[in-house]
Amino acid sequence: ADVAANAAARAAEQRPDAYANEPARWDGLQVRSAAPFNAEPPPAVLVASYITPNHAFYVRNHLPVPPVATGDGTDFQLSVAVPAVVAGAPSSAASASAGRSCVHTLSLADVQALPAVTITAAIQCAGNRRTEMSGHRPVKGGAWDVCAISNATWTGARLTDVLASLGVPDASALAAAGVRHVVFEGADADAEGGTYGASIPLDVLAAGDVLLAWAMNGEPLPADHGAPLRVVAPGIVGARNVKWVKSIALSDEESHSHWQRRDYKGFCPSVCLEDADYDASPSIQELPITSAIGDVAVMPNGQSVTARGYAYAGGGRPVVRVDVSADGGKTWVAASLTGADGSPPSAARGGRVRDYGWTLWSATLPLPSGVGDAELVVKAVDSSYNVQPEGLAGVWNVRGVLNNAWHRVRVGGEGDE
Amino acid sequence: ADVAANAAARAAEQRPDAYANEPARWDGLQVRSAAPFNAEPPPAVLVASYITPNHAFYVRNHLPVPPVATGDGTDFQLSVAVPAVVAGAPSSAASASAGRSCVHTLSLADVQALPAVTITAAIQCAGNRRTEMSGHRPVKGGAWDVCAISNATWTGARLTDVLASLGVPDASALAAAGVRHVVFEGADADAEGGTYGASIPLDVLAAGDVLLAWAMNGEPLPADHGAPLRVVAPGIVGARNVKWVKSIALSDEESHSHWQRRDYKGFCPSVCLEDADYDASPSIQELPITSAIGDVAVMPNGQSVTARGYAYAGGGRPVVRVDVSADGGKTWVAASLTGADGSPPSAARGGRVRDYGWTLWSATLPLPSGVGDAELVVKAVDSSYNVQPEGLAGVWNVRGVLNNAWHRVRVGGEGDE
Ligand SMILES: [Mo]
Ligand SMILES: [Mo]
Repeated sequence: ADVAANAAARAAEQRPDAYANEPARWDGLQVRSAAPFNAEPPPAVLVASYITPNHAFYVRNHLPVPPVATGDGTDFQLSVAVPAVVAGAPSSAASASAGRSCVHTLSLADVQALPAVTITAAIQCAGNRRTEMSGHRPVKGGAWDVCAISNATWTGARLTDVLASLGVPDASALAAAGVRHVVFEGADADAEGGTYGASIPLDVLAAGDVLLAWAMNGEPLPADHGAPLRVVAPGIVGARNVKWVKSIALSDEESHSHWQRRDYKGFCPSVCLEDADYDASPSIQELPITSAIGDVAVMPNGQSVTARGYAYAGGGRPVVRVDVSADGGKTWVAASLTGADGSPPSAARGGRVRDYGWTLWSATLPLPSGVGDAELVVKAVDSSYNVQPEGLAGVWNVRGVLNNAWHRVRVGGEGDE
Repeated sequence: ADVAANAAARAAEQRPDAYANEPARWDGLQVRSAAPFNAEPPPAVLVASYITPNHAFYVRNHLPVPPVATGDGTDFQLSVAVPAVVAGAPSSAASASAGRSCVHTLSLADVQALPAVTITAAIQCAGNRRTEMSGHRPVKGGAWDVCAISNATWTGARLTDVLASLGVPDASALAAAGVRHVVFEGADADAEGGTYGASIPLDVLAAGDVLLAWAMNGEPLPADHGAPLRVVAPGIVGARNVKWVKSIALSDEESHSHWQRRDYKGFCPSVCLEDADYDASPSIQELPITSAIGDVAVMPNGQSVTARGYAYAGGGRPVVRVDVSADGGKTWVAASLTGADGSPPSAARGGRVRDYGWTLWSATLPLPSGVGDAELVVKAVDSSYNVQPEGLAGVWNVRGVLNNAWHRVRVGGEGDE
C-alpha cells in the first residue's frame, strides 16, 4: 500500500493530470487516502442493507482512475492470451501468435454478447480493520476501520465462457497445458506506465464463478469500481478482483506485480519488515471468517441493546452462526442471520453450498447492569466451523492484513470510529 | 457418543456375542472406551511419522465391529441405490426398481475391478481434544486427548467411478435429479439392528476424491478400520467416513441417522443440552484449522527445546504456516513443515491446491530463562488464512466437539496426557 501510494504520488508529481479522471463521489464516504482514492462508508450505513448501494460501496484504488473508466466504452479493448496448444489453433495461427500464445482482442460488445450471469458477492480488502491492528502494534499500510467490505450483485460474462468463445474447452485443458494461474492487468498505471496487476489460481477459474462484470447492482459499473469491465472473483480478496481490466493471460506462474508478490501476504506475528520473506508466504486469495458490529441501539429504558453487523467468509463458505455478547465474551447469544433472500443462509440448515455474499446479523441482548461497562463482542462461524480468534496477539502482522479478531464495541460509545 | 455407548451397552447385554468380532489390537493404544472400542496412540508415536502405521491409527468405533470385518470378503455385498431417471434405465427396469431408484448389488471384486486410486488423507474425530474442553466446563461426550487424528494412504475406487459403472454420468446429473446428499450405511449394528449411518453433501462427491477404499497404507483394511470396504471422504470429519459400508443411497436429504442429525454438530458456547437445536445447526463436515504438540525434547543444557506436532485443516485446505511459542504466546517462531513428499506443502509456496493429508511440523526454540515457567504453544494457519482461537471460551460447546484452540504444553511436563 505504501509502495502504491508512493507510485501514485510520483504519478501526481510527474503528471499533473494523473488524477484528471477521478469521478464525483458521495460525500458520506470516509476518506482514508485522497490520491489514490481510498474510502469506506460509515458503519451504520454499511449494515443497513444487504446490498450496498453503489455510492456507498468502499473504494480501494491503488493508482489513479484511468481514462478508460470515464470513456464511452468505444475505446475499450481487452486482450486475452490463450496458449495455442489449448485453443486448438491451426499451426499457421499458432505461428502468428506471440510465442506459444494466441492473443485475442475483445471489445466490450464481444464480452456483452456472451450469456449474462448475475452473482451476489461481497468484496473485502485484506486490510479491513487495519486501524485496530495498528493500535496493537504499528503496521505498514493504510488505515481502514471496519468498512473496507461491501456486498453487491455483479453482472457479466463468466470468464470460462469468454475463454470458451476463444477455443478453450475447459480448465482441465488449461491444467494439462501447464496453466496454473490466471493473470490480470488493469488499465490503471503509475508514472512509469506500470499497471496494476494480480492473479488467481486456476482452480478459482475452474469453480466457474469468476466474472468479467460490466454491471454492479443493475447499473453500469461506476468509474471507481472498474468501468467499463472488471474481474469479479467471488470468494477472493479484493486485490485480485482487478478493476479496469485490460489484459488476461494464462500462465504457469502468479502475476509478477508488486501487489501479488510483495504485498497482500500474511506473516507470523514475530516477523518484522526486514525479515518478511514474501516468497515463502502464500499470496492472500480466500479471506478467513470475520464479522463486525456496524450499528448499536440502546433501548430507551437502558435495559437492552440491539446490535447489527456483517459476517463473511472467503471461498464461498457460508456463515453458519454469529455469536454476540454484551458482557465482553462471558455469555453469548446466537444472532438472527439474513442472507441473500432475506432468510438465513441455507448452509445453517444443512448441506454445503457456495455463498459468496456476506451475511447480515442482528441480536438484542439484555443489559442487566445497564449501559455502564457493557462491551459488545461479535464472532462468527463458517461452514467448516472455522472461528475468529479472540484478540490481535496471534494474528497481528507487520503488514496489518487479515485482522479477523473478535470485534468489540463499548455500548454507548461511537462504535469503531 | 453417549447414545452410541448406550446402544452398544444394550447390544452387549442382549447379545452376549455382540463383541465377538473385535480384532486383536496394539497394546500401545490408549483406550478411551473398551466397548465400543475407542483408542488413540501416544502423542510421540503419532507425530513420529508422516504416515501413521495401521496399528497406531486411532480407532473410533460407534458400535461393535461387525462380522463382515473379519470374514474373507466373500460374504460382502454393497448395495447402491441410483435414481432411475439418472441412470437412464429403460422404463421396464425402472418399474422394477424400488420406488424411483434402481438398487444395484456389488461384490468386493466389482469395486476392485475399477481403476485403483491412492489418496493420502488424515482422518480426525470431531471430538479430538475433548478432554481439554471438559476441563474448561463439563461436556457430553467421550474423552479424547490430542491424538484422535491420524494420517494414512487409502487405496480404492473413486465413488464417482463406481456410480459411473452403474450409469450415472456425473454429479451434475444427480443434482439435476434433485440429489443433494450421498447417504452411507455401515454394517455395524446395535441390539435392535439399527446400523451406523452418515451422509456427505453432493458437492463433496462432485469434487471427485471420495473413495470406497479397501486398502490402508498398502495393506488390506484392518477390521477396526472398516474391512473389507470403507468410505474415505478426504477433508471430511471422521464420522462421515463410514466404515464397513454396506449401502449407499443418493438422496435429497441428509442421512436420518442419530449421528447425522443428533450428534456431530456445533453450538454456541451459551447453549446447554436442553436448548441445543440440532435442526438449526449444520452437521459437521469439514473441520477447522487445528494443530497440536506431540513431542517435546529439551536440549541437555536446558537452553533450548525442540517441539514437534501435527497441523490439519478440513476441505483439502493446505496448512501454510505453523507458529510455535516457548513463552506462552508472547513471541513466535514459524515452524519447519513436512508434507506428503517430505517437503513443505506446496501451498506455502503459492497457488491453491488440495492437500488432504496433515502437515507435520518441528521447531527449536531458545529457553533464555531455562525450563522454569516455559509454556509451549502452537497455532496453525490454513490456505484461506483461517487461524485457531487462543482459548476455549469462544469454542466451548456442550457436545465437546471442534476444539481447535491453541495447544499448550508446559516444558518439562508430560505433554497433554
Ligand atoms: Mo485490498
Ligand atoms: Mo468422531
